[in-house]
Amino acid sequence: MSLTMTDDFYDKLYRPHIHFSPSFGFVNDPCGLVYDGKQYHLYYQFRPLHNLINEVDWGHAVSPDLYQWEDRGHAIVNSDEKGMAFTGSVVVDGQNTSSLFPPGKAPLPANQMKGGLVALYTRDDRSIRKNHKSTIHAAWSGDGGNHYEDFAHNPVLDLNDPDTRDPQVFWHAPSQTWVLVLASAYTHEILFYGSRNLIKWEHLSTFAPAGYQGVEFECPNLVELEIEGEKTKKWVLFISLNPGSPQGGSSIQYFVGSFDGKTFVADNNVMDFTDFAKDSYALQIFNDAPDGMKCGVSWFGNWQYCFFQPPKSWSGAMTLPRQFHLRRNEIGLPMLIQRPVGIDALVAKTLTSSQFVMAYEHKGEKTVALPTDAAIDVRLEAHVTHAVEPNGWLDIEFSNKAGEVLSLGYQRQTKSFWIDRSGLKGFSNHTFSTHFAASLPRDSKSFQAQIILDGCTLEVYLNDGAGVGTCLVFPKAALDTLTLRSSQLGLDVKTFEVNALKTTVKEREYL
Amino acid sequence: MSLTMTDDFYDKLYRPHIHFSPSFGFVNDPCGLVYDGKQYHLYYQFRPLHNLINEVDWGHAVSPDLYQWEDRGHAIVNSDEKGMAFTGSVVVDGQNTSSLFPPGKAPLPANQMKGGLVALYTRDDRSIRKNHKSTIHAAWSGDGGNHYEDFAHNPVLDLNDPDTRDPQVFWHAPSQTWVLVLASAYTHEILFYGSRNLIKWEHLSTFAPAGYQGVEFECPNLVELEIEGEKTKKWVLFISLNPGSPQGGSSIQYFVGSFDGKTFVADNNVMDFTDFAKDSYALQIFNDAPDGMKCGVSWFGNWQYCFFQPPKSWSGAMTLPRQFHLRRNEIGLPMLIQRPVGIDALVAKTLTSSQFVMAYEHKGEKTVALPTDAAIDVRLEAHVTHAVEPNGWLDIEFSNKAGEVLSLGYQRQTKSFWIDRSGLKGFSNHTFSTHFAASLPRDSKSFQAQIILDGCTLEVYLNDGAGVGTCLVFPKAALDTLTLRSSQLGLDVKTFEVNALKTTVKEREYL
Repeated sequence: MSLTMTDDFYDKLYRPHIHFSPSFGFVNDPCGLVYDGKQYHLYYQFRPLHNLINEVDWGHAVSPDLYQWEDRGHAIVNSDEKGMAFTGSVVVDGQNTSSLFPPGKAPLPANQMKGGLVALYTRDDRSIRKNHKSTIHAAWSGDGGNHYEDFAHNPVLDLNDPDTRDPQVFWHAPSQTWVLVLASAYTHEILFYGSRNLIKWEHLSTFAPAGYQGVEFECPNLVELEIEGEKTKKWVLFISLNPGSPQGGSSIQYFVGSFDGKTFVADNNVMDFTDFAKDSYALQIFNDAPDGMKCGVSWFGNWQYCFFQPPKSWSGAMTLPRQFHLRRNEIGLPMLIQRPVGIDALVAKTLTSSQFVMAYEHKGEKTVALPTDAAIDVRLEAHVTHAVEPNGWLDIEFSNKAGEVLSLGYQRQTKSFWIDRSGLKGFSNHTFSTHFAASLPRDSKSFQAQIILDGCTLEVYLNDGAGVGTCLVFPKAALDTLTLRSSQLGLDVKTFEVNALKTTVKEREYL
Repeated sequence: MSLTMTDDFYDKLYRPHIHFSPSFGFVNDPCGLVYDGKQYHLYYQFRPLHNLINEVDWGHAVSPDLYQWEDRGHAIVNSDEKGMAFTGSVVVDGQNTSSLFPPGKAPLPANQMKGGLVALYTRDDRSIRKNHKSTIHAAWSGDGGNHYEDFAHNPVLDLNDPDTRDPQVFWHAPSQTWVLVLASAYTHEILFYGSRNLIKWEHLSTFAPAGYQGVEFECPNLVELEIEGEKTKKWVLFISLNPGSPQGGSSIQYFVGSFDGKTFVADNNVMDFTDFAKDSYALQIFNDAPDGMKCGVSWFGNWQYCFFQPPKSWSGAMTLPRQFHLRRNEIGLPMLIQRPVGIDALVAKTLTSSQFVMAYEHKGEKTVALPTDAAIDVRLEAHVTHAVEPNGWLDIEFSNKAGEVLSLGYQRQTKSFWIDRSGLKGFSNHTFSTHFAASLPRDSKSFQAQIILDGCTLEVYLNDGAGVGTCLVFPKAALDTLTLRSSQLGLDVKTFEVNALKTTVKEREYL
């Protein structure tokens, strides 16, 4: 690959086809995720001038299906007077509990709504004031979410603290209360507030100290999830953590417990991380998704290297929309399950679909040519029929003629599934870790994986969502070959399906 | 480096000079760590026939100072009748509470002892019996710890469970009780037992569920540690975890709480890992170390790749002996501090010792030639005087003429310290992660590091033991040059000292 290759080549090579990414500039946290009854809104932390961290706006995109995103540009802007517009929430204030909507300003008359979309978000004034503070502001939209008008008497919450931020707001029906969840980044306290009107907030409780500490706690999100196969639901509190995660930089931990509208109580001392790779951060759950679906997206990135990684003209993406459940593990603890929403509907062409046996004695090998202008969806289900410890493995390899290899695979001895991006040459950095592994249940002789490769994004879903790896990948040239190869492992491959997915992202103009 | 280089070359290249490693065969967990009043005993899980996992003995070494180890060979052996000799503890039963010592068999008459060393360890019969069980056995040594005689009525604990193992036993003076801490590997329960005589054990309490789950819990160790600068002590419960740690494979988590002789109660929901790299496992604390010192060692390895890594004739080592304390972090939580014991006494030659300024505008650079037949000790303390986000860094580079680089360094933007072993060519594997990072306190403008490179072992101690990285390194040729280099960072280097350390390990014969 020529070193004189223009940047446009990489801007395009790394552009996802089904993941949201910005036309230009830098994005990080998703915010204001809400379904308004007709469409999904995805707001996002936006630095139009890539890398200049002291100007942060809310960008805005809308979608009917979480895949076809129409970018609407700025919704809330950085201001010389107010500071940066940091992460927050948007809720549907259908009854105008906030009284923010003047008569005639309810944007959805068809639904008989008296109100509309209200944003609660962080204003961070570090760039403009000597005594840095983060405060919580309210704003309402008179045009269905494209632009927001600030409440006249902001802030609605001022804790006189530079680092209390990222309000998540949702309606808690049993107590008929708006609940606001806030992170005090450095004291590691998660603060709960309640309100009847989205304006006047009362402190309800504090959850701390808990979990893995790291340096900053951010973007708390509390959501009630179903336990699969049971009628029980549990509340799950997600906390994003940066820097200092065990894999370096940014990650998300969660706790399972109960919530009565006022206080979150963890069931026990157990904690877990959402991902076995390291490029998922700032998870947020959609408010009011249809049919009670609990789904959300996180930023596809890590603060360790996001300012250094390619491409140049745009940076950052969102993960696929994921639906969340809980599933009890072998000792009865409810653990997080994450599944991508609606991938089946995106299958444009099935490149291969077969069942076969890979013999122990000889290396088996299957090769599939991949289109380079579409997201690729690989589904694999295999049963181990013969293994001798410790050497057996199955390698799932994305490669190209430039000799680059993105390796994923199953290692029999430790019953683990690896991602190894060290064979890609498009980016290196002393903090850009390259090897990740998830452990599968100890007694399992079968495993199941769904792998979605899309531009610079790789997502791996193991055992129907029990393990998830979210991993940026930067080859120097497109990965156009998929090879399945085993060694010292007898395998009954029950599913091997490779699909090209329909591109849902609008084609960008490249000069 | 020639591919025909004999294995002996690597067997020697990777041999540490101050870390314990076996003359031959494979070692993993340290066990039976005890100071008997005259010398330290280090027993270790030993597979004399490298890689054959169904024959595991206790090897044994003794030392006056935790550095000069004399290997005494087998102490407790794998048996066709009893099964494998898995991890356990050794205590000084000075009063012969166990009644295991016949009159005249007390090995230390000078100390007026009526008894001597008693081992409590796991027998795992998976290799010989259909109904696999792990049971706890007692044994006593009539020769000061070189060989053990099994108690006639073993097992002393049989939970009818295949995976309850790794007893830690210590004397709890306030309750005048022997306490035994046991891990039920797959139910993730930590079980506490009490005894007056080391033979008859009564269940006291169970600590579960807690912390990061992974797949197996092993090697629990409970110890009371001082909080620096306070008269308070807290109990710390270490649990080794494998596989499934966030960085892949094996790691150690810990909890801080209280212990009344019967029940461990964690102070809160907080947990932490002991290491920011991934090659420290199965930590054990010495019983009865002099002056109340709380010190221990862990296995220098990870189950993900230990069977594949070089060298061939021997494999595995122990970490340096480390002394443990607690120190309150910025929000008052007591967190683990680990410092290597007695390194100063090992300094044989100071290669450089200086103070200097590294200017922001130009790349500063310092180079030191390193001897290749000794462990190297680097001490660095620096104050950042000028930085512009996000690019400033300081690189501490071990290299050789073959172009290999082991990079460590400080990254200003995320205030983190990295280890990057990806530039070494002696070993690669899809699970052999290469990039690690520790975060430093957010407001710190100074950092301090001690780096000890010794054969295939690298240990990094940050900010006086607040962060520790334990990391295997496999270059193809000796790393003989140290370079300090900065970019876009103004630094006041208050300490830059490089020492060659005295070799304490006996020279092995290589054919």
